[in-house]
Amino acid sequence: MDWKGRDVISVRDFSKEDIEFLLKVAERLEKELEEKGSLDYAGGKILATLFFEPSTRTRMSFESAMHRLGGSVIGFSSAATTSVRKGESLADTVRTVEQYSDVIVIRHPMEGAARLAAEMVEVPIINAGDGSNQHPTQTLLDLYTIKRAFGRIDGLKIGLLGDLKYGRTVHSLAEALAFYDVGLYLISPRLLRMPRHIIEELHERGVEIHETTDLEGTIPELDLLYVTRIQRERFPDEEEYLKVKGSYQVNRRTLEKATEKLKIMHPLPRVDEIHPEVDRSGHALYFRQVFSGVPVRMALLGLTLRVL
Amino acid sequence: MDWKGRDVISVRDFSKEDIEFLLKVAERLEKELEEKGSLDYAGGKILATLFFEPSTRTRMSFESAMHRLGGSVIGFSSAATTSVRKGESLADTVRTVEQYSDVIVIRHPMEGAARLAAEMVEVPIINAGDGSNQHPTQTLLDLYTIKRAFGRIDGLKIGLLGDLKYGRTVHSLAEALAFYDVGLYLISPRLLRMPRHIIEELHERGVEIHETTDLEGTIPELDLLYVTRIQRERFPDEEEYLKVKGSYQVNRRTLEKATEKLKIMHPLPRVDEIHPEVDRSGHALYFRQVFSGVPVRMALLGLTLRVL
Amino acid sequence: MDWKGRDVISVRDFSKEDIEFLLKVAERLEKELEEKGSLDYAGGKILATLFFEPSTRTRMSFESAMHRLGGSVIGFSSAATTSVRKGESLADTVRTVEQYSDVIVIRHPMEGAARLAAEMVEVPIINAGDGSNQHPTQTLLDLYTIKRAFGRIDGLKIGLLGDLKYGRTVHSLAEALAFYDVGLYLISPRLLRMPRHIIEELHERGVEIHETTDLEGTIPELDLLYVTRIQRERFPDEEEYLKVKGSYQVNRRTLEKATEKLKIMHPLPRVDEIHPEVDRSGHALYFRQVFSGVPVRMALLGLTLRVL
Repeated sequence: MDWKGRDVISVRDFSKEDIEFLLKVAERLEKELEEKGSLDYAGGKILATLFFEPSTRTRMSFESAMHRLGGSVIGFSSAATTSVRKGESLADTVRTVEQYSDVIVIRHPMEGAARLAAEMVEVPIINAGDGSNQHPTQTLLDLYTIKRAFGRIDGLKIGLLGDLKYGRTVHSLAEALAFYDVGLYLISPRLLRMPRHIIEELHERGVEIHETTDLEGTIPELDLLYVTRIQRERFPDEEEYLKVKGSYQVNRRTLEKATEKLKIMHPLPRVDEIHPEVDRSGHALYFRQVFSGVPVRMALLGLTLRVL
Repeated sequence: MDWKGRDVISVRDFSKEDIEFLLKVAERLEKELEEKGSLDYAGGKILATLFFEPSTRTRMSFESAMHRLGGSVIGFSSAATTSVRKGESLADTVRTVEQYSDVIVIRHPMEGAARLAAEMVEVPIINAGDGSNQHPTQTLLDLYTIKRAFGRIDGLKIGLLGDLKYGRTVHSLAEALAFYDVGLYLISPRLLRMPRHIIEELHERGVEIHETTDLEGTIPELDLLYVTRIQRERFPDEEEYLKVKGSYQVNRRTLEKATEKLKIMHPLPRVDEIHPEVDRSGHALYFRQVFSGVPVRMALLGLTLRVL
Repeated sequence: MDWKGRDVISVRDFSKEDIEFLLKVAERLEKELEEKGSLDYAGGKILATLFFEPSTRTRMSFESAMHRLGGSVIGFSSAATTSVRKGESLADTVRTVEQYSDVIVIRHPMEGAARLAAEMVEVPIINAGDGSNQHPTQTLLDLYTIKRAFGRIDGLKIGLLGDLKYGRTVHSLAEALAFYDVGLYLISPRLLRMPRHIIEELHERGVEIHETTDLEGTIPELDLLYVTRIQRERFPDEEEYLKVKGSYQVNRRTLEKATEKLKIMHPLPRVDEIHPEVDRSGHALYFRQVFSGVPVRMALLGLTLRVL
């Protein structure tokens, strides 16, 4: 595949080879950065970060990645002060920003916004989340985190916990994990089970699937537990929510039967799905996961800018 | 003239020689940037962008220009979070920011704000729009765009379309074009004609002027059509507005009688003055015009910083 | 003392030797910057500025300092668009940002926030103000300004004017000045006198203290007058406030009996405590004081980053 000048819109656009290549480049960059302290691949290049809806974490991760590559950043962090207010179309906004920059990262509340933007401009577009649709760099950094922690993805038993019905992150991750030889444990309340069409697709692609509502009983099986937030508003009544919430908190007690090597990930921000007492245990991988965003985004920026 | 350390407040402060010199420097920088990929004239210098009212497009253009010159940027994009809220005067704000930076770009809702700022500080001040008064870098980039597209300004027949009564952009542009040997076609609804005093000044300076309400009849004469927005609130009743709006949209039909070489410009953002179907025609110059802002602002920053 | 990797949370954590060392480093950096135009000590390093409450002046000063050192900046200027809104804890926010950066500057409305942050992360934390508690870099730049203006701090007669009861700035400054052999003149309305416990501490540390309500009578004694704002809301009735306000404005008349060498400082922003007519007199030191923030913050960033 040719990465050069390519847009990054959806993980579904990537083959397994694309992903493997990207993870290798990210690993190389992480090591180079550690050795040399700073890199200059993107010296003189400009990243524009267009956050039509705020996402401080994702924005700062991309900006850090661009600076670590030696490049510069311009942009905005919310649509409140942009020409959108004057009635400008998204197409015009991105064609304007294209004149000021070499690569554009876009986050937009509207599904399909990133794809539309990519069709309008010649500079590469990287999707940092478009509505409930796609957030491909999150999935790529999740895979990178797993590979770096375990040295491999094949052979792992991975639990996905939380809101598996509406959760964009777990849908994308599950689809990407289907490239590998993994066992997936889908742990959720009945109301928030993974949609049938995704489970069928995973089956067809040869993934071994276990659905369950039982977190504690499943934990001993797992190499990795990927936790996501369960939102109150998904439940018809408060009492039902509180029951579920209580039984899905990951804490010292929940982890009593975990194997020593169990790792826990979370896309963050968390509220109380993972108790802070877990942070200092050897299980916590979620801040390392945050860090992984930087080399993965460095790789994406560097490849699409054609400077690596 | 000595450009070094000079403020850029109003196009009226510039002689024709000043403008020609600036356009030459901008062209040189554009070519150097294309050849070398990145420049380092302003390495170690800091631009402060003080946007007391938001203008994402202008801000990003200046920031891109500063980064393309190798410099850094600090600033704010709206007054909402500044000391102005604590009752600080504009004079104190700019004298404070002067301590942090080497050149200041200011946008302010109050007419005369940029001039006042320039009187208070020793670092150069560049006006990025003060109320309905002046926005000199827009005019300079317009001239640059024309010169780059046609190879000259002299001899061109230029139509100015839209709200010629209140439009700051077209007033400044018309005054600057009076330095050249051009024919101006002022195309507007009767209610929004160019003010008499400007027309008289243009006459005195030897510009050939044609006033008309007829867009379609005028198009065949033109080398360049500069389109601006007509705002609903300028009209006493809705019906009148809709009639005008309809007859002044530039689209494929309007352009049927245009010569092949006709170019169309617009300061953007547009709403529906130019139909998107025009974007892919050879007439559209408005995104190239956006790009022109970068070398022109690089030239302004570099000259006032004395680093070129 | 070992400055490397250290947090900067409170001036109370500093010995006199720590302060003296810092001021020397700041002076060296200021001179180097003047000679060379730009420095590259922090090339490749990233500063994250986390302003949970806005403070444009302080933020821009830190960003300027980081750029002057050759480094890059990421961050946010108000909490409005952060994950805090999604219920994220401060601890999680700083541990996330730690993954993206090499040093963190934090401003937070909650007392103790900076100390808490420092306990959560391994990168250095610099406190840019936590509620009414501490703003150590203001105190350090105040000391630096005095030392640069007078060549020494010992032996000076220093007036502190304004709200000495609630003013965080004057409390910290007075405590830091107690390291030196100074005479302090505390000039305030009776309602806003310096708290007893601070005065007692200053006495114990050997500072010569004069309390007074009389500005004009005290001015002839002073080498330096440090002015702060008196806030209307501190007074039970409006009339009382206006009387006080009038008698504490520093203007040409107030300064008639000042010695020629008297210098006036103010942490800014000011409202009307110092009349603008004073700005152009030789007494005004407050914009030089703003400038001093840059070398002092360069020194703090460079030392904590271990790049000097």
